[in-house]
Amino acid sequence: MKARVHVMLKDGVLDPQGEAVRHALGALGFAGVEGVRQGKVIELDLKAADKAAAEAEVQSMCEKLLANTVIEKYTVEIV
Amino acid sequence: MKARVHVMLKDGVLDPQGEAVRHALGALGFAGVEGVRQGKVIELDLKAADKAAAEAEVQSMCEKLLANTVIEKYTVEIV
Repeated sequence: MKARVHVMLKDGVLDPQGEAVRHALGALGFAGVEGVRQGKVIELDLKAADKAAAEAEVQSMCEKLLANTVIEKYTVEIV
Repeated sequence: MKARVHVMLKDGVLDPQGEAVRHALGALGFAGVEGVRQGKVIELDLKAADKAAAEAEVQSMCEKLLANTVIEKYTVEIV
């Protein structure tokens, strides 16, 4: 079973990496970009056969390792 | 209009960051993790009103800046 986790900075937390991308896009001539936020996507191959159990396990992974929940939010998707 | 871009290393390209996450998950007691790949997700706020035009523009951004197409693949999603 595959799971996909998105980790993004929470709204309101400054995202210098996203800002750098926005500037670079402007410099390349892409004028219509109003904002950029950059995050991580983590794809996991899991042994678990049960969807609900897999989702709970991945939630736990996020809390313990994959996301810094002070400044980041995450979403888990079983695919 | 919002666009979301996923940038992942191509299959077959070594992903040391993903491997590090897999090891760390194993060390934390998550036994059922068979593989981890880590990539980037970039969320763009665009002025463009036309969906097809926005998608074409974001494709162009990926080719020019957001992805290194030698080793990375990307997907564009207008949300």
